[in-house]
Amino acid sequence: MNSEFDIINQYFAKYAQSKSSQDLVLGIGDDCAVLAPDPRKLLVVSVDTLISGVHFPQSTSAADIAYKSLCVNLSDLAAMGARPAWFTLALSLPESDAKWLTDFSQSLFATASYYGIHLIGGDTTKGPLSITVQVMGYVDKHAYITRSGAKAGDRICVTGKLGAAALGLKLVLLETQLDCPIATQAALRALNRPEPRLAEGLKLTTIARAGLDISDGLLADLQHLLDASNVGAIVNVDDLPIASCVLSHCKRQEALKMAMTGGDDYELCFTLPKDTKDDEVLRGVDFTCIGQITHELGLQLMDGNGERIKISGSGYDHFVL
Amino acid sequence: MNSEFDIINQYFAKYAQSKSSQDLVLGIGDDCAVLAPDPRKLLVVSVDTLISGVHFPQSTSAADIAYKSLCVNLSDLAAMGARPAWFTLALSLPESDAKWLTDFSQSLFATASYYGIHLIGGDTTKGPLSITVQVMGYVDKHAYITRSGAKAGDRICVTGKLGAAALGLKLVLLETQLDCPIATQAALRALNRPEPRLAEGLKLTTIARAGLDISDGLLADLQHLLDASNVGAIVNVDDLPIASCVLSHCKRQEALKMAMTGGDDYELCFTLPKDTKDDEVLRGVDFTCIGQITHELGLQLMDGNGERIKISGSGYDHFVL
Repeated sequence: MNSEFDIINQYFAKYAQSKSSQDLVLGIGDDCAVLAPDPRKLLVVSVDTLISGVHFPQSTSAADIAYKSLCVNLSDLAAMGARPAWFTLALSLPESDAKWLTDFSQSLFATASYYGIHLIGGDTTKGPLSITVQVMGYVDKHAYITRSGAKAGDRICVTGKLGAAALGLKLVLLETQLDCPIATQAALRALNRPEPRLAEGLKLTTIARAGLDISDGLLADLQHLLDASNVGAIVNVDDLPIASCVLSHCKRQEALKMAMTGGDDYELCFTLPKDTKDDEVLRGVDFTCIGQITHELGLQLMDGNGERIKISGSGYDHFVL
Repeated sequence: MNSEFDIINQYFAKYAQSKSSQDLVLGIGDDCAVLAPDPRKLLVVSVDTLISGVHFPQSTSAADIAYKSLCVNLSDLAAMGARPAWFTLALSLPESDAKWLTDFSQSLFATASYYGIHLIGGDTTKGPLSITVQVMGYVDKHAYITRSGAKAGDRICVTGKLGAAALGLKLVLLETQLDCPIATQAALRALNRPEPRLAEGLKLTTIARAGLDISDGLLADLQHLLDASNVGAIVNVDDLPIASCVLSHCKRQEALKMAMTGGDDYELCFTLPKDTKDDEVLRGVDFTCIGQITHELGLQLMDGNGERIKISGSGYDHFVL
């Protein structure tokens, strides 16, 4: 069995950015990493933990776990409109398994390389499988997105399609597949390989009034935005962009529930001033307007006929499930 | 049972630094914290995880766990000669226990306040008890301590006294006490309330050639310094500053082993150029010279008669215990 130091050296340190660059003075391998952040920018920081059996099924592959650990954090950077810079990794694992570590580290570094983010420090410990990644990124001093800027009248929008990750989780937990292999693949891909909307976040910095990423379900996360902005919202459920694998394989009620309360979508939810001319800036961004910000607090759901509807459960929360 | 969001709000967010200051633009409560680091300084970053049953006995109090989670990270800042600035907390706990969370958060914020470090972000998840803290701090551009600067001829020094935390761990695991209550208290305090040597680290920036903190045992950590500096060392075991509770309650062989290989001391080990006039700079710093850096690689132990000695086990490593 390898020791902690061997693990760091063999699987992580030699691939990490240890050499100095313009803003990285000292990378992995000392008590701390040393950074010289670009003073023309602001630095943003976020941290998220994934725990086996809570945030991903225990059957999830090491490569998928590594990908997702990094990408759920990149999604937080996307939500602010940030460019990725560095990350640290705190990895707890029950035993030192060479195959698992090889798969995990290869996927981690491939993903990091793709998104232009560099490992600068970490900690490996023996314990139940758990991965905590902290990301750091850059935003422009006067162009980043927060949760608190939404105003009454704003249009509420989401990127991409919703609900596929929830369907993927259902398939894994039931150990089943859909009758269409392509739909099965799409659902599992949404669950295991969510794409952080970094390019979309960058474009939104010049135009969005507020935004966040959808990790706990659209309604739960939108409520956070409403709370932070001290406003309410009407969401038109008939306008929700539901993933096609969900639409084609679930009854309407279940499809709606997956799209509104299913976790792990990692799309961005944002608001645009009512009369924004957004065609140019948002060219190429796949997004859908799903409702409107209101003065009146609270989150109301309407169908296409203007009738209020109700849905049970408001999102994915580890302590109330 | 509280939800994840209630936990963050009730126990952490309202005490965290959410208002802007000169270098904190946006604190806890959004997808990311936003920082405007002082451009005259460099930023240092470190992360450490503590897991129940691995890094602390399961009987450890919530207050002690909070203290230690922060202080083992502050010790990494101390090792670089950094001033604390900000930290994030990723807390995984099996259930939402109000008393535990109250004790934990009160101790965490009291400790943070004492050391002048501010919580800027975090994540709470349901899972086995585990605490990952990432700290950030400032160092001067040309005055910080790394592991790699030791030169042959340097004196090897350590702050404080060694071995008490190992004795404390032994007492907890055996559920016993020493016949002297004061010694028992000293050993348990060393285990549960290690003091990060921040003031000492700052003083050392102008004089130390290399340094790190002792978390895994003197010999194991010194070996990391030797590896990074590509040098060897002779340590005079008769010069080791062994904690008095260890000296008075353990046989010599056990006392030596605790001082050399016991984990959790969180003292600093550093090297000074042979002929440094250090009296002024290190005034008030409790430290002891324990040996010398050598050209010849490897770590040799000598007794007072210049005889080589051997000791079994080289430190505390979670994957080889």
